[in-house]
Amino acid sequence: MDELQTPSLAELHALIEMTNTLNMEIFYWWCTALMILIHAGFLSYEIGASRLKNALAAGVKNILAFALIIPVVYLVGWAIYNAFPDGLVPRMDALIASMPWSESMGPNIQDNATGIFWGAFALFAATTGSIFSGAIIERARVSAFLVLTLLLGGVLWLLAAAWGWHPEGWLTVKWGYHDVGAAGVVHMVAGFFALAVVINLGPRIGRFNPDGSVNPIAGHSMPMSVVGLMLIIVGFFGFLGGCIIYNGGAQWINIYGQPTTLSAFSFNTLMGFAGGVVGAYLVSREPFWMMSGGLVGIISVAPGLDLYHPGLAYLIALGVGCLAPMVNQLLLRLRIDDAVGAFAVHGFAGFAGLLISGIFLSGYPNMEGMADISFTGQLVGAIVMASLGFIPGYLLSYLLKQVGMLRVPAQAEERGLDLTEVPAQAYPEWAAMHGQAPVSRFENSHSTASIAMENKLA
Amino acid sequence: MDELQTPSLAELHALIEMTNTLNMEIFYWWCTALMILIHAGFLSYEIGASRLKNALAAGVKNILAFALIIPVVYLVGWAIYNAFPDGLVPRMDALIASMPWSESMGPNIQDNATGIFWGAFALFAATTGSIFSGAIIERARVSAFLVLTLLLGGVLWLLAAAWGWHPEGWLTVKWGYHDVGAAGVVHMVAGFFALAVVINLGPRIGRFNPDGSVNPIAGHSMPMSVVGLMLIIVGFFGFLGGCIIYNGGAQWINIYGQPTTLSAFSFNTLMGFAGGVVGAYLVSREPFWMMSGGLVGIISVAPGLDLYHPGLAYLIALGVGCLAPMVNQLLLRLRIDDAVGAFAVHGFAGFAGLLISGIFLSGYPNMEGMADISFTGQLVGAIVMASLGFIPGYLLSYLLKQVGMLRVPAQAEERGLDLTEVPAQAYPEWAAMHGQAPVSRFENSHSTASIAMENKLA
Amino acid sequence: MDELQTPSLAELHALIEMTNTLNMEIFYWWCTALMILIHAGFLSYEIGASRLKNALAAGVKNILAFALIIPVVYLVGWAIYNAFPDGLVPRMDALIASMPWSESMGPNIQDNATGIFWGAFALFAATTGSIFSGAIIERARVSAFLVLTLLLGGVLWLLAAAWGWHPEGWLTVKWGYHDVGAAGVVHMVAGFFALAVVINLGPRIGRFNPDGSVNPIAGHSMPMSVVGLMLIIVGFFGFLGGCIIYNGGAQWINIYGQPTTLSAFSFNTLMGFAGGVVGAYLVSREPFWMMSGGLVGIISVAPGLDLYHPGLAYLIALGVGCLAPMVNQLLLRLRIDDAVGAFAVHGFAGFAGLLISGIFLSGYPNMEGMADISFTGQLVGAIVMASLGFIPGYLLSYLLKQVGMLRVPAQAEERGLDLTEVPAQAYPEWAAMHGQAPVSRFENSHSTASIAMENKLA
Repeated sequence: MDELQTPSLAELHALIEMTNTLNMEIFYWWCTALMILIHAGFLSYEIGASRLKNALAAGVKNILAFALIIPVVYLVGWAIYNAFPDGLVPRMDALIASMPWSESMGPNIQDNATGIFWGAFALFAATTGSIFSGAIIERARVSAFLVLTLLLGGVLWLLAAAWGWHPEGWLTVKWGYHDVGAAGVVHMVAGFFALAVVINLGPRIGRFNPDGSVNPIAGHSMPMSVVGLMLIIVGFFGFLGGCIIYNGGAQWINIYGQPTTLSAFSFNTLMGFAGGVVGAYLVSREPFWMMSGGLVGIISVAPGLDLYHPGLAYLIALGVGCLAPMVNQLLLRLRIDDAVGAFAVHGFAGFAGLLISGIFLSGYPNMEGMADISFTGQLVGAIVMASLGFIPGYLLSYLLKQVGMLRVPAQAEERGLDLTEVPAQAYPEWAAMHGQAPVSRFENSHSTASIAMENKLA
Repeated sequence: MDELQTPSLAELHALIEMTNTLNMEIFYWWCTALMILIHAGFLSYEIGASRLKNALAAGVKNILAFALIIPVVYLVGWAIYNAFPDGLVPRMDALIASMPWSESMGPNIQDNATGIFWGAFALFAATTGSIFSGAIIERARVSAFLVLTLLLGGVLWLLAAAWGWHPEGWLTVKWGYHDVGAAGVVHMVAGFFALAVVINLGPRIGRFNPDGSVNPIAGHSMPMSVVGLMLIIVGFFGFLGGCIIYNGGAQWINIYGQPTTLSAFSFNTLMGFAGGVVGAYLVSREPFWMMSGGLVGIISVAPGLDLYHPGLAYLIALGVGCLAPMVNQLLLRLRIDDAVGAFAVHGFAGFAGLLISGIFLSGYPNMEGMADISFTGQLVGAIVMASLGFIPGYLLSYLLKQVGMLRVPAQAEERGLDLTEVPAQAYPEWAAMHGQAPVSRFENSHSTASIAMENKLA
Repeated sequence: MDELQTPSLAELHALIEMTNTLNMEIFYWWCTALMILIHAGFLSYEIGASRLKNALAAGVKNILAFALIIPVVYLVGWAIYNAFPDGLVPRMDALIASMPWSESMGPNIQDNATGIFWGAFALFAATTGSIFSGAIIERARVSAFLVLTLLLGGVLWLLAAAWGWHPEGWLTVKWGYHDVGAAGVVHMVAGFFALAVVINLGPRIGRFNPDGSVNPIAGHSMPMSVVGLMLIIVGFFGFLGGCIIYNGGAQWINIYGQPTTLSAFSFNTLMGFAGGVVGAYLVSREPFWMMSGGLVGIISVAPGLDLYHPGLAYLIALGVGCLAPMVNQLLLRLRIDDAVGAFAVHGFAGFAGLLISGIFLSGYPNMEGMADISFTGQLVGAIVMASLGFIPGYLLSYLLKQVGMLRVPAQAEERGLDLTEVPAQAYPEWAAMHGQAPVSRFENSHSTASIAMENKLA
């Protein structure tokens, strides 16, 4: 606005560089905000997918997971991402530069980047934790969930990203691994982690009959679930925005440094969503699976958001969208009770998406000096991601199971987790109308801490 | 960040041009994301506006409409917009350039524009489809709705936009039609389409008594409806953002090429919302109509968002906000059962807004060589939009009615559409508490496809 | 896109200045949109926090408050902010320049700033009004609430901002008051206003026993409340975005003109949220307080979002998050019934946050010629903000009480405000299942206006 004096060429260059720095910062600020909408969506959807007696316990664990993952990503997660692109041996300089006491890890008017990227990574971490969280509702202890989700969101996702979602990650460098929209590094890791935990956790009481047949257990509010899932789709635009790199006023690049556009993301995200909904509808006819199919569709095309033709993206999403509900049925046949289909929607769809991208994108060149995209590379990457989710998830949940900390007692499960894990009631008036005694709020709560405080105060 | 060498003037120019290209792309990316929030809002609001027995059927049709409209806009809609600004004779070069196999209709690092604009247009299309969808709840077949909404969202809205919301549309060129915020091309087309369909569809069973008096049929959850409507208001900022053209670092222009600002949009959108809420409140006192009044207010000032004084915008919105609930009462007197007031809120408000703009904006110059804004021009435009919605909607729904495909059988309507069209229950536990038998989920669903699959798998 | 001719240095400078102008406008456009999500969140959260019989009355007052505050900010609020930085004597030129008939207060292609900033301020005003609105649910008259909230949102918040959130506000100039994220000027003013009104309003019937013990009154839908609170967290990114100044392509500045970054905001907002949730969880174990704790956390670090180390922000938020639920318990002991803890969450957290910032930020230099940040300055500012909320709130609510307009009659409170203040039912079918007579909608409403109209029309 002050145009008193015409600046020099160098001054003008500095001005536009700063403009681009601010543009970058603003872009990821909104990505971060919309990823919190993913969290609002998961909150609504998982509460709705729980029965009345477990509704709040589902929500409480989601809120706590979000709040606990953030500081863990601050303390260790960010360092893991930056220091481990080569595998399990850290780059010491990057490790030190990411420590909480380093110059970049706080307000610093010389650094418009670290905080905003850290914020986006923290929300990716929270998303990873939330993907897992739906699978174990209605019988896992909140405390066990928190330990597990901190491992997943605070450590594993960042290791996965360092390996396969980093310009110098070994999977890309050596195998040409191409996973632009994080189908493997977020969705597969979380989905396979969920599968491993659910195997150790066991099904909800009454889920299976002795003859192996399945008893449907529907959540208490399908409307909350489907609206929540639509909020997640809105938030996906923040998530996928976080998957493209604003490159200082030059063309967008993907996380590996190859040029791309938001226009390509727009085409393929929307067509993937559309195909996935229709695919899941054709097989299931159910609103819950239709909306989950929208997620499946986006995840299934996520590896090649930058390269697919939109028509191809639609067809891929349609196909994987048809298969995902069947994968969940298969788990049920194996007596595995994944309460919201987290494995089918995230683990399977990510896996299928990576393999399919290995077929259609095989031969596309990677950055100079790195392996081309290939089916083998995508397969190797997918196996790494599956393992990185499954093995630690299996081991830690097995350990928690052995020490009796994984699952609430059968009696507590029958009465509902809201009584034991929260304690409060989701809908106290409706509960009272149906003859249930009130569970009081914090104000005169049954929890020892509150009663103690109450005594002190009142 | 790299300031090793000062660039030349031409290099700097290229840098800033690219910056502006990215700015444009980012802006519409967020518009697209927020327009999905409109969809989340409609989902919540229509589910809430349905009775318990029809809650999921309302949601299912919304989700499917969104998913089906996207590929139709990809396959034909985008071409319609680009090729038909002159009327019904296509511009062949534009038609060919918009075909799915053209260079611009996929990832192309030379084209940062097409995908992002296509995405915004696809969401406008989905919005158009959603506006219509509330009117026909609780008795229309999902299949009939889908056929109708594909015509509306995938074809008619794009023809309306080509004619009246395109820099070279014949309505603007010849008549000076001025509809900056899409009051006519989106809201009127959808509202008049809804009216036509509702006439053929007929009222819900029990809506009217033989003496013509009206039985209120309230939705099962007013809270879901009003929260959903507030989400739509948030999403309106994406929609209206999609109505202003980022012009490469020069001043914003409206869709016709005239300079404007987002500041003007901010003033008039908020004042329009405020006036509309108060107007509808004065007449109805009802939360559903108050929030709908907010939509009415924004729509009523949408044609002149770029030109109105904010005080005038408030008064227009207040007036139209008072009238909209009365228009719905008038329809009821005519035994027309528009379940959510879609015609009053979108059709009537768009119509009134265009006529009022013809009074206040008459004489404003249009672009060079085009007709000035005039009352006649706005009236002609409004009539065209009404016809473009009403006539095809009437004909297609009449046809569907004749072949018995428009409406579910009376018995199915009495029992509720969730049983026949979905089938699932919105709130299975509450239903069970009130003695209703469970409708199982996909897992052991009544639908033939699912049962067949179940048999195969389990 | 047209690169036919290389522009001159001056032309290029103008181009980039315009780019930055548009960037600024776009940034605050999205801030405004996301702040409406705060409103959607408050709507959901307050409806959920009300008992069934009062659910819609809670929502109606929120919607009306939003709609009424907007024109008041247009007519007087914006002028107050601009004219009163010196205290109670207006700057006449600024006053005149902000009048509704001035050039800047409408569409003006020479002014890309006023409308967009006005919009953000109007949403800050609406947020202020909403903070207050939860405290008084279930017994205040809607009309009394509206009068009070117009004073708060339309006048007081803007005076607070002129004094303490303006580059030349007397609190900053003389006392070095530093309140970057509006902890005092928004949250304290609203929280202390709420406290004052609640004192005059008195507790809900049945809230306290004669011996002073507390009866818990839980809202009817905890899920609606917690999802609403998470939407508010999303919206907070709009709110806090509105607290940082886009400075024409130079480094960001805070409202006082000192350099900062969005990166710093990202670090401290997320760490503050996380700490607050955990703090409130440790004390209360309750989902409602956990999510409120997230708000507490952000508010408690808001004064120093630009300067805190993220680890410090976490600890501050953790501590204040522990205290806030106890502050609400203390109010209960004093028989003060703040239905949603608005004072504890906003008033107390803002107050604590300002005092803590006085400790940790003491000695930081302010802009040239202004007092440094000091504990005394922060204390003075906090006292001013508390008084600016409390005193007018107390006086006006006392006046309304004296003339019998503050509270609904006891009988109406017992029957529920939805019957008297709306009138409609939130969930008519569930109500009917439990034997309640229907309250009809507008269509054949009990309200005189509607009946009159109905008679005319039908």
